[in-house]
Amino acid sequence: MSGGRFWQQLEKGQVGDSVPLAQALDEIPWNADGLIPAIAQQHDTGEVLMLAWMNREALEETLEKGRVCYWSRSRQQLWRKGESSGQVQELREVRLDCDGDTLLLQVDQKGPACHTGRRGCFYNRVRDDRLVVDKPVLIDPASLYGK
Amino acid sequence: MSGGRFWQQLEKGQVGDSVPLAQALDEIPWNADGLIPAIAQQHDTGEVLMLAWMNREALEETLEKGRVCYWSRSRQQLWRKGESSGQVQELREVRLDCDGDTLLLQVDQKGPACHTGRRGCFYNRVRDDRLVVDKPVLIDPASLYGK
Repeated sequence: MSGGRFWQQLEKGQVGDSVPLAQALDEIPWNADGLIPAIAQQHDTGEVLMLAWMNREALEETLEKGRVCYWSRSRQQLWRKGESSGQVQELREVRLDCDGDTLLLQVDQKGPACHTGRRGCFYNRVRDDRLVVDKPVLIDPASLYGK
Repeated sequence: MSGGRFWQQLEKGQVGDSVPLAQALDEIPWNADGLIPAIAQQHDTGEVLMLAWMNREALEETLEKGRVCYWSRSRQQLWRKGESSGQVQELREVRLDCDGDTLLLQVDQKGPACHTGRRGCFYNRVRDDRLVVDKPVLIDPASLYGK
């Protein structure tokens, strides 16, 4: 909960107070792999679509281009969301939390965000002593990835 | 994106298919510290309140008691949300994502979720080349924590 001095100072801010973005990026406490988690939320419905990770390069590209780019931990490379599937995330808003260690992205997601072809990744719901799939596949992933 | 075989199998599930929850908990790919990120979303407004971390014990307690318990990385102990501030999170729903490596909690948050006394933690918004505080403090944190 308690971040560095920079974030503790910003905590005391009133509405409208601000700091230079470049300085904030320098103060993000990137994890040991140089990453920060990013939550993507559909801007108009509020649905939480997915959580993925960004390094500084991915975040800077996202801010610059207005289209979301993550860091793929499995492929160890920049992951321009939708570059193979066409299901891009247009960026509407970026927020950092109180400690500067999590991003919240408001996005406009074209089609399914999830690689399974579902709208979002959180389709497994706990119900009593079971984990239940409760969201449908919208598009066959084979057609999304051209396999 | 590509999780273990258990999650890959579950990906293929139709709506209504399920697996035992105990098995799913065994298959969560806890990180090197034994943790998984948990997003807390206010169940009725859709506001993303915060992201924190859970170990297996915290998740099991949360499921059992219906009140959210995290793992505090700074204090290295179970963190029963609201135990010192009174600002508890009643649990409404728990979801796991496609890879089983992120939790999405629907909660009913009493008062501020953020230790700064703001409703949620994501009060720092990127606007052009500035990071701007755009949410007010609702309760003086000194009164929340009795300092």
